[in-house]
Amino acid sequence: MTPPPGDMDPESFRRHGHRVVDWLAEYLASPAQYPVLAQVSPGDVAAKLPSNAPENGESFDAIFADFQRIIVPGLTHWNHPGFFAYFAITASGPGILAEMLAAGLNVQAMLWRTSPAATELEEVALGWLRDLMGLPASFDGVIYDTASVSTLHALAAARHGALPDVRNRGVSGAPRIYCTEHTHSSIDKAVLTLGLGLQSIRRVPVDTGLAMQPHALDAAIAEDLAAGLTPLAVVSTVGTTSSTAIDDVAAIADVCERRGVWLHVDAAYAGPMAIVPEYRHILAGAARADSLVVNPHKWLFTPFDLSALYCRRMDVLRAAFSLVPEYLQTPESGRVRNLMDTGVQLGRRFRALKLWMVLRYFGAEGIRERLLEHCRLARMFAGWVDADPAFERAADVPFSVVCFRHVRPGASDEAIDALNAQLLDEVNASGEVFLSHTRLHGRYTLRLAVGNLRTTERHVARAWELLRGGAARLSA
Amino acid sequence: MTPPPGDMDPESFRRHGHRVVDWLAEYLASPAQYPVLAQVSPGDVAAKLPSNAPENGESFDAIFADFQRIIVPGLTHWNHPGFFAYFAITASGPGILAEMLAAGLNVQAMLWRTSPAATELEEVALGWLRDLMGLPASFDGVIYDTASVSTLHALAAARHGALPDVRNRGVSGAPRIYCTEHTHSSIDKAVLTLGLGLQSIRRVPVDTGLAMQPHALDAAIAEDLAAGLTPLAVVSTVGTTSSTAIDDVAAIADVCERRGVWLHVDAAYAGPMAIVPEYRHILAGAARADSLVVNPHKWLFTPFDLSALYCRRMDVLRAAFSLVPEYLQTPESGRVRNLMDTGVQLGRRFRALKLWMVLRYFGAEGIRERLLEHCRLARMFAGWVDADPAFERAADVPFSVVCFRHVRPGASDEAIDALNAQLLDEVNASGEVFLSHTRLHGRYTLRLAVGNLRTTERHVARAWELLRGGAARLSA
Repeated sequence: MTPPPGDMDPESFRRHGHRVVDWLAEYLASPAQYPVLAQVSPGDVAAKLPSNAPENGESFDAIFADFQRIIVPGLTHWNHPGFFAYFAITASGPGILAEMLAAGLNVQAMLWRTSPAATELEEVALGWLRDLMGLPASFDGVIYDTASVSTLHALAAARHGALPDVRNRGVSGAPRIYCTEHTHSSIDKAVLTLGLGLQSIRRVPVDTGLAMQPHALDAAIAEDLAAGLTPLAVVSTVGTTSSTAIDDVAAIADVCERRGVWLHVDAAYAGPMAIVPEYRHILAGAARADSLVVNPHKWLFTPFDLSALYCRRMDVLRAAFSLVPEYLQTPESGRVRNLMDTGVQLGRRFRALKLWMVLRYFGAEGIRERLLEHCRLARMFAGWVDADPAFERAADVPFSVVCFRHVRPGASDEAIDALNAQLLDEVNASGEVFLSHTRLHGRYTLRLAVGNLRTTERHVARAWELLRGGAARLSA
Repeated sequence: MTPPPGDMDPESFRRHGHRVVDWLAEYLASPAQYPVLAQVSPGDVAAKLPSNAPENGESFDAIFADFQRIIVPGLTHWNHPGFFAYFAITASGPGILAEMLAAGLNVQAMLWRTSPAATELEEVALGWLRDLMGLPASFDGVIYDTASVSTLHALAAARHGALPDVRNRGVSGAPRIYCTEHTHSSIDKAVLTLGLGLQSIRRVPVDTGLAMQPHALDAAIAEDLAAGLTPLAVVSTVGTTSSTAIDDVAAIADVCERRGVWLHVDAAYAGPMAIVPEYRHILAGAARADSLVVNPHKWLFTPFDLSALYCRRMDVLRAAFSLVPEYLQTPESGRVRNLMDTGVQLGRRFRALKLWMVLRYFGAEGIRERLLEHCRLARMFAGWVDADPAFERAADVPFSVVCFRHVRPGASDEAIDALNAQLLDEVNASGEVFLSHTRLHGRYTLRLAVGNLRTTERHVARAWELLRGGAARLSA
């Protein structure tokens, strides 16, 4: 009896691989051939797919044809130079090539021995990034998939530090987490996941720049302590999601040190900007934080997903999570870093490979000039907003995101909010640009986020043209 | 002023991409050119890497050369046909090609609108897999990265069901989770992460086949209820990690239904075997479970990571996790599936693409014959063990994993345990095979796990040859 066929044979893999690379090269050369925001209705894609898996295998050619025919038109194109929504990102060439290799190698870095190079490259690449951002070597790093998961681990470590019984006896008492109304929703998700309850979140007032007020933080902690609550952690943000506001981390670190509370810094988006000497100050005080998250998959040209958590108390994080069943015992344990000890997930992709290749391919100087260009584009757009009486800016522009809105004299706030929601839908329906929105001081606010390596002046100018044209039409 | 360079130019990407594909094709054709278990010492890889990121960008050729020179020799090769440790896995050709495309597209499926095709393909591909395994359509699915994270969400949903106040007020009372000593450690990690405390885990006795005793489970729940504790969930396993034992899910479902307790089924490894009609019975009763996890990245030829959680009460899971800040509101919300509502992670890779391509490329019949071949290889190996007086089998072989040990008449259990640990180190040092171990009934046990598409009779025979030779040398 002949054994059944194994995997796709190597020659076929080579042939199909070349086709895929050619398709990607062509795609990445001109993603603007597609609408940036998918122009499909709910259910359109699913309706084109059979409801059952095939009984017999199909050729890769047939599958790839369906990919191009059915899947691609149903995608929102994050590579499109007109992608200005949320935080714009880039899967750079070296990052994609690294992902190809990682997928083929398929190593699981749960233990050092299950791929020593994956574990050690993670340590090295995270050391490089830490040094580039000017953080001290007292920060040890670990790679997770997303900032949500990095944050979950940071707060779990804080929980372990404040409630040493939590690992065995579970959550007890009345814990408190301090943040602001502009802190990312991943904090809320981490808090509810960790069993702390959303009521444990205390939102500290912000100043007019939307940054946390350190004095108000101190007063809140004092009040809670007097009431018998247990301050667990403070989450400060360098580059909030809505407006990229920057908390005064140094002043917050003062409070945290005095009060003995874990300080977590969310620099998921803006952290890489600290690689630029003139922006190094954004992380002032962060050296005294207990943990800090930065996402190379956001603004460091690394394909999604790769979030880096830096921690000055990795021993606490390990104490919170380490748990080694017999089948994962190894002779070298104690002498090596076993990544499974630092988290919920046992299995770990070889994510460090893409970070290493991206850092080497662009180099520190190449990263700096690209980030500065994105900031320049954002300031340019902000200048147009400021000069046009039909628009107003809604926040400062410290990085590459502009918050603004269309205004109409005499109209109510509610009417203006509705007008801007309508304007957003109109420009997004163009397929040429994709922007998103938020609320600042309760008001509907448009956001233009620059962050893709393909975005140039031309694309930002086109966004402005569409916005002005749309606003004029709505006024007519 | 010329703008700074953006990404790697498309022609360079094409050229380097072809090189990477050629390298992968050659690598996948003969991964056995490398030792399966990395033959390096702790720190060897890191010592070969510079301690700082380069100031100026480097060529991809230079980076790729270092990858081959420094990284590859420091890897443990999960593609090697002699990989028999933990659960052996395969990054199949179609799966790798899909990952290449996903990395290039770099879409984030957090919201339907951020890539409708990614969200809808996830629903379709998970429906295909559910139907193939014979699970009813009442199960809705969601893709996470790992079984650890799937399980975390399943238990979080169970927690939400049993403690409705938990989302706002946090964990309270005395919750209970039921499993056995053979349940995967990810349950323990989920329990401590969720703030339930490890003491909430109650291990139900197993029978001689290492499966949970349903009567003992019922008695444990009754006792806990009488003591005022809150039964939260029961975790049953189809294919335990140590020995691939199969719990009687139908009998356990009876208990859970009677007691009103959430039933989670861990079929991470063995679930795909239910695609084979003669093995369909392994999931008998699972249709009455509340949730079930299966990992296509384990035994379904899909590159790591892709774990599928099926849930009959996805509304509870959503109620536990949904949380929509203003900047993630969309006009179509309520009419579409927004994947961010089903979990901790906001960002989501386009993982469905590889599952869809793998299912189509191999087809149901192609999957069945490959899984059956792995089971045949395991039974063949088990037969050799059974026929050799220097070895004994330590558990049944329901799937593709064989538990066994070298024995020596007259030697103490401790001496035999030590002997087997030594034997394991010796055969692993060969570089030809990689096995791992566990403990069953307290005794050190070797495991041979078949699961890679490149593994044939020849490789299993070589493992046996090395084990017999090693045992003979140790006896000499």
